[in-house]
Amino acid sequence: MNTKQTKYVYAFTEGDGKNKQLLGGKGANLCEMTQIGLNVPPGFTISTEACLRYLDSGHTLPEGTMQEVREQMAALEKATGKLFGDAHNPLLVSVRSGSAISMPGMMDTILNLGMNSDTLNGEIEQTGDERFAYDAYRRFIQLFGKVALGIADELFDEPFEAIKKREGIKEDVGLSAEHLKEISEVFLEVVHGQTGRPFPEDPYEQLEVAIKAVFDSWSGKRAVDYRREFNITPDMANGTAVNVCTMVFGNRGNDSATGVAFTRNPGTGENVFYGEYLVNAQGEDVVAGIRTPKPIAQMADEMPDLHRQLEELRSKLEKHYAEVQDFEFTIEKGVLYCLQTRNGKMNTQAMVRTSVDLVEEGLISKEAALLRINPESLEQMLFPRLDPRANAEPLASGLPASPGAACGHVVFDADRAEAQGSTGKQVILLREETKPEDIHGFFASQAILTSRGGKTSHAAVVARGMGKPCVAGAEGIEVDVMARRAHIGDVIIKEGDVITIDGTSGNVYLGAVPTVESEFSEQLKTLLAWADNEAKLKVMANADIPEDAERALKYGAMGIGLCRTERMFNASDRLPIVLEMIVSDSLEERQAALDKLLPIQRQDFIELFTTMSPNSVTVRLLDPPIHEFLPSEQQLISDLQQLRHLRNAMRGSEILADTISLLYPGGIPEGGLPQVLQVADSSVVDEAIEKKQAILKKVRTLFEVNPMLGHRGVRLGITYPEIYAMQIRAILEAACACQKQGIEVHPEIMVPQVCTSEELKSVRRHVETIRAQVASDCGIEPEFKFGTMIEVVRACMRAGTLAEEVEFFSFGTNDLTQASFSFSREDAENKFLPMYNEVGILQDNPFEVLDANGVGKLMDLAIGWGREVKPGMKVGICGEHGGHPASIRFCHNIGLTYVSCSGPRVPIARLAAAHAALLEN
Amino acid sequence: MNTKQTKYVYAFTEGDGKNKQLLGGKGANLCEMTQIGLNVPPGFTISTEACLRYLDSGHTLPEGTMQEVREQMAALEKATGKLFGDAHNPLLVSVRSGSAISMPGMMDTILNLGMNSDTLNGEIEQTGDERFAYDAYRRFIQLFGKVALGIADELFDEPFEAIKKREGIKEDVGLSAEHLKEISEVFLEVVHGQTGRPFPEDPYEQLEVAIKAVFDSWSGKRAVDYRREFNITPDMANGTAVNVCTMVFGNRGNDSATGVAFTRNPGTGENVFYGEYLVNAQGEDVVAGIRTPKPIAQMADEMPDLHRQLEELRSKLEKHYAEVQDFEFTIEKGVLYCLQTRNGKMNTQAMVRTSVDLVEEGLISKEAALLRINPESLEQMLFPRLDPRANAEPLASGLPASPGAACGHVVFDADRAEAQGSTGKQVILLREETKPEDIHGFFASQAILTSRGGKTSHAAVVARGMGKPCVAGAEGIEVDVMARRAHIGDVIIKEGDVITIDGTSGNVYLGAVPTVESEFSEQLKTLLAWADNEAKLKVMANADIPEDAERALKYGAMGIGLCRTERMFNASDRLPIVLEMIVSDSLEERQAALDKLLPIQRQDFIELFTTMSPNSVTVRLLDPPIHEFLPSEQQLISDLQQLRHLRNAMRGSEILADTISLLYPGGIPEGGLPQVLQVADSSVVDEAIEKKQAILKKVRTLFEVNPMLGHRGVRLGITYPEIYAMQIRAILEAACACQKQGIEVHPEIMVPQVCTSEELKSVRRHVETIRAQVASDCGIEPEFKFGTMIEVVRACMRAGTLAEEVEFFSFGTNDLTQASFSFSREDAENKFLPMYNEVGILQDNPFEVLDANGVGKLMDLAIGWGREVKPGMKVGICGEHGGHPASIRFCHNIGLTYVSCSGPRVPIARLAAAHAALLEN
Repeated sequence: MNTKQTKYVYAFTEGDGKNKQLLGGKGANLCEMTQIGLNVPPGFTISTEACLRYLDSGHTLPEGTMQEVREQMAALEKATGKLFGDAHNPLLVSVRSGSAISMPGMMDTILNLGMNSDTLNGEIEQTGDERFAYDAYRRFIQLFGKVALGIADELFDEPFEAIKKREGIKEDVGLSAEHLKEISEVFLEVVHGQTGRPFPEDPYEQLEVAIKAVFDSWSGKRAVDYRREFNITPDMANGTAVNVCTMVFGNRGNDSATGVAFTRNPGTGENVFYGEYLVNAQGEDVVAGIRTPKPIAQMADEMPDLHRQLEELRSKLEKHYAEVQDFEFTIEKGVLYCLQTRNGKMNTQAMVRTSVDLVEEGLISKEAALLRINPESLEQMLFPRLDPRANAEPLASGLPASPGAACGHVVFDADRAEAQGSTGKQVILLREETKPEDIHGFFASQAILTSRGGKTSHAAVVARGMGKPCVAGAEGIEVDVMARRAHIGDVIIKEGDVITIDGTSGNVYLGAVPTVESEFSEQLKTLLAWADNEAKLKVMANADIPEDAERALKYGAMGIGLCRTERMFNASDRLPIVLEMIVSDSLEERQAALDKLLPIQRQDFIELFTTMSPNSVTVRLLDPPIHEFLPSEQQLISDLQQLRHLRNAMRGSEILADTISLLYPGGIPEGGLPQVLQVADSSVVDEAIEKKQAILKKVRTLFEVNPMLGHRGVRLGITYPEIYAMQIRAILEAACACQKQGIEVHPEIMVPQVCTSEELKSVRRHVETIRAQVASDCGIEPEFKFGTMIEVVRACMRAGTLAEEVEFFSFGTNDLTQASFSFSREDAENKFLPMYNEVGILQDNPFEVLDANGVGKLMDLAIGWGREVKPGMKVGICGEHGGHPASIRFCHNIGLTYVSCSGPRVPIARLAAAHAALLEN
Repeated sequence: MNTKQTKYVYAFTEGDGKNKQLLGGKGANLCEMTQIGLNVPPGFTISTEACLRYLDSGHTLPEGTMQEVREQMAALEKATGKLFGDAHNPLLVSVRSGSAISMPGMMDTILNLGMNSDTLNGEIEQTGDERFAYDAYRRFIQLFGKVALGIADELFDEPFEAIKKREGIKEDVGLSAEHLKEISEVFLEVVHGQTGRPFPEDPYEQLEVAIKAVFDSWSGKRAVDYRREFNITPDMANGTAVNVCTMVFGNRGNDSATGVAFTRNPGTGENVFYGEYLVNAQGEDVVAGIRTPKPIAQMADEMPDLHRQLEELRSKLEKHYAEVQDFEFTIEKGVLYCLQTRNGKMNTQAMVRTSVDLVEEGLISKEAALLRINPESLEQMLFPRLDPRANAEPLASGLPASPGAACGHVVFDADRAEAQGSTGKQVILLREETKPEDIHGFFASQAILTSRGGKTSHAAVVARGMGKPCVAGAEGIEVDVMARRAHIGDVIIKEGDVITIDGTSGNVYLGAVPTVESEFSEQLKTLLAWADNEAKLKVMANADIPEDAERALKYGAMGIGLCRTERMFNASDRLPIVLEMIVSDSLEERQAALDKLLPIQRQDFIELFTTMSPNSVTVRLLDPPIHEFLPSEQQLISDLQQLRHLRNAMRGSEILADTISLLYPGGIPEGGLPQVLQVADSSVVDEAIEKKQAILKKVRTLFEVNPMLGHRGVRLGITYPEIYAMQIRAILEAACACQKQGIEVHPEIMVPQVCTSEELKSVRRHVETIRAQVASDCGIEPEFKFGTMIEVVRACMRAGTLAEEVEFFSFGTNDLTQASFSFSREDAENKFLPMYNEVGILQDNPFEVLDANGVGKLMDLAIGWGREVKPGMKVGICGEHGGHPASIRFCHNIGLTYVSCSGPRVPIARLAAAHAALLEN
């Protein structure tokens, strides 16, 4: 055992400013500031070690602690020329707790410690301000009584309010010195009554009691709960320190002041000094809001010398901390004291701007500039958001399905959205749920709102792809399409009413809530260029149509990592052909429909490849079960009922125009829409019924109990090879067409839902045949790569044999997560996942944060087995996790080549990729 | 290079009887028989090596081959005293192909080779039977022409038929020597005409051509296709041998005969000589069926000496081959020749009996006795099956969902099944699909037939559990419950009509097809006891109710590996309480329903534990999504429609009795069923409507897009802990109740659908609390183990951390297979799986044969990680694979402790487990 007496107390001039574990965050910071020459009021810190000893030894201060404290107090007396407990020029101190991590539940600050009936007079003598002295005194008694002695606040507040009431005074400032004196006396009696002892007059007794109270608060229930809740382990923070600091007052006359400042503008990041001050005031006056503080700039006129000192302080702080600082200062009788400083909290725009500026000013490295920005926070800059000052009350809420805010007039179907949106009107499409056939409504709308479905519902996925805000599954909303209105509780929203939705929070508001536009600033571009230099992962975008690709490029995507070909089927001019393909009973009929789709898809690919040239474009062959392209059974039954009623009613009578859309799904016939159909037209109705019946029959045939695990992906490619053949041909012909024009293209054919190498072999045989045909037709070898999604668990297990067939892997972590957990995302997010998060079964939603221990382990195994066969093989991820920083870091660590995410998340991913490389362990 | 001349030809007296690769199966067998002293006609084998050389060198016989053949022929001449090509006493031979594996597509036999115009006369001279000689001659010409020269059969058949027609002869036997002579001459012309050369007269030329034709047939299209189809690789069979054998004739008079025999009765396995013979006849006469062969026993009178020789032959064969033999013999002029022998094909009953007998007779070891029986074949003995002699034509077919055959009167709903079945009538329940509420109908029926659903449909799973035959998804059947009839094409089946179903084949027959009962014979019991001694895997049964458990015990189950508690909910007196629990909106209501279920479940467990004592019973807590206990949305809507119509119609008018069941779902009210409801009763209707509406609402709330991946298993246990609490309490209280009576019990609590250790921890906390309460209430510590299903992929990945929480793992390979492949079984088996098998993407249905490379790999990893934490931990499997031999072997190899399967498959599993241990590599 070390017999040498342990040192427990450190003057601010001697404590190690880096040792937060020993001195607490606040103590270390006060030491640091003191030692770099900032004018901090003299003081000292009692270490966390003392705290732990104290708690371990039955709440007894370690031997010698109070002796050390007395020595430090003597030093303070020497430094200030004041004496602790002196009746003429008394030294007052503040006592604060402070552990390595800031933590609610620990003791509050006690100010003005050292006051008693003697020193009260000393204060009056020194300041000549009786009211000030009594005010300080009654505050000290209450704070000490409450914090150090555990007396309930009400016991002080009640007599205080009684006196105010008796005197007819509303505000505390109205109280005179006499009143405050009376209050002080009452408070002393309260303490005496509650503790059975008079208020401690001895300042050292006060100090010792306060120190012990701080230490006790570390093991108090609230602090213990907090540490458990936030999983704060002893290696993060163990015990609290106590900081004892000389009191300084900004309210000692017109040569005194108090204020807070940022070294730069925290709202914009601009390199201008930013802050406020009040002359002859205390910090709490600023908080009370009775007087309006003045901007710092004004100090240059009012107190030019102190303003210069403050500028110097600002510059010293930034130079030392290499970070924007948020600091507090007090001027007591012309002397500037710095009381506290910390890194300034800023919005993302300011963070980005200061990052670039600080590098250019030589204060920090590019690495540091990248690391100081949380990648996720970039979302603020990339999507419009609600004006934070708006403070509107949401009417309903759903799932935050696609970020960004937008307002517009409500429409209840895609046709109306198109009709009104095309006239320039801002509309929001509100549906129970959306279907591929609504796609034209998405294009025309500002945002999408649905009352059913989760974050992977059609509405959510399509909106994210388009970068449009979407709130999905807002279950409080009842949509009545027929009546063209929706109910939210008692509120009724009619077509044309204005609402605002916030896809970042999931909130829905009535009326127009002001929004702030997105800004892909020059500084952000600079920063992301640095990020790209650091990152090892490439960042690709998920993009299905040329418009998406162009936006993705703007965001810095290095290629397209996932083009979902089925999205191309969704345009309203194509869906009828797709329907024709699906409903066809013979290969011939199906082939005829595919022949119509081929030139359309080819043209899509030509545009996409050209836009992205010379970057790669990974095209996924048809993935979703084909029944997803069909209307729902319910919808069809209801349509059929309506049509049959119509037919029955068609004895010369008029029919509603609404029903006509059921007759002409492809659009209004030439010559305009007949308002009235006569008996002669009943064949049109019969035909419509027949068509609907055929579709209904198909819907029933294609019904699947678990569509997520059903007839989809490559399983379709094996059972209907002609569909894949069309898509492969479209890709290869498009490649040739581009190459002939001298456009460099790198298309990649990707097969979804693969679980055996036989599936890949089968598709590859088709690719080979078609490649040979296309090459001979075009007289040029199409450039392409062949790869597979890894989104089925078995594909992970068989990664070695799959690797033999392909040039790249792309993890589809959405499906892989579903299969690994046996959680259907759509069901889980509505049913048990929230509860799972709540009771702590799962920390995160695995569909948002990649589950490293389960899904990640599978990926890691698969990469290992795959690269054993094909060393260095290209491996990417194209699930939604590809855009989330923590997951990106995981992807980096397991050696992925690239991540792919929705266009607007590309900047986030680029920064996260840089972080991953910089933080690699 | 070996310059020594390679030997290509082996006399039967010198070839190595074990070397099938070199001599082919037939050749090796002929050598073997010759060398153990059986009287085989002399002959020799040309090796497969010669065949391969021949094919490699452009179809040229290796040097020296014909020289060796001539030497062997000389030896045959010496042995027989006949001369090849001799005009007086000619030697005739047969030429046959024979590779290591018997294979269709290779050359047929050529008989009587050596015949020509000279030797024809020699034959006549030797036999004095001109007709015999010409008959042999014309046969040889045709066979040689067809097989060795490739001439189409029709070219011989047409003139042959023309002559018969001209002569007015119907049967070949009617042809005279003259006719056959004419035919021979015509045949010679056919050969000349087709080949452009006269028929080869030189016997050695005949022999060489025949040998080459055999070799050529190895590379013929049919043989090559066959080898590819059945994946016969060169290490299994490479090239064919040629067997040349002296001809012997059983038609040389009354001292000649021919016959076939089994060394034991192949129908029963009884140790009696079994066979037939014909005096003065050739093998083909038996086949032609013109004369009726006599039973071997009769030979003892007719040819006592030869009968004694035959008995000797029988005994030698069995002693040598240590296996029941199926052999052919010919007696030529009083000399017995054995022409061929092979292991006798027997039905399972006979296999089992002979296995036990052969061991008792000391002919084979117990190991060999076990290994000679294919475990899967035991199914024949364990389920009733269609009488193989019945030969009925199926009316429809579906999936073979639960094995066994049964016939009975069709009923269309469970109530009728119960009503009629309880009177002792044999009924078959025919439904579109079944629901838990039909369960009482299962008990009352012989078998179940559905027109929709797969092998995992409710009907299939429940029927398998009960050991009742079931054909599921017989899509050709249209069921009209209202009209109480079904259509199968044009056939109409009315209620009460008799049908037969075969759950082993999936066929459905009109009328009663005779069936053969199952037989769990004494010999089978003996055999399985030997199996248990060898096996390392324990074999448990899946059983949900005491009746199942009793049957499982009878089949030798060593415990219950899976008791699905939810099955206990399905009894018709319980389902209403379960419904009450589900529909309840508050915890209190739910708890009230659970309180009613508790004593019922406890009683179930007491019975189950008592039945199985002292074996372990593994109880799985509630697994299926609770909506599975509810009627379908469609059903409810239709019920509601009907009820509303009824209410509207209730203006004093009569209503149909059918509808009344909708009003009294719990059964007919006391006082009997009112045939007519009066207006006064309309409140009953209102109430029924209200109840149905509440259920409908619940059904809609509980709707899931992918129920397989939904709110089920432990997820229910977490969100509704009170349900699991009731089940855990029932188990532990039942254990205590048994223990108090001195009954040794080993219940195991098993948690389904686990994916994280937090889930297990949460359930374990409940178990611990309830255990303490039960122990204190009962004054006795309940005995139990705690374990988890491993059926979610993530559970495999996290096996190490899960192992910390449990005492055993049980793999649920049904779900694990679904999740690993991302195949929904119900959808896959109806949609793409058949095609996947057909085009060879998958060799097997992974739901039937455990996928070793994918699912198995996951299991292997999980066991490794789990036992790293808990060495030697008990690990089982309770998916359907647990009853399938190949999967059981895999389970043995990866170190499982036990398999659990449906009761009737327990014997199969016991034998398979022994095989796995004996065949361990």
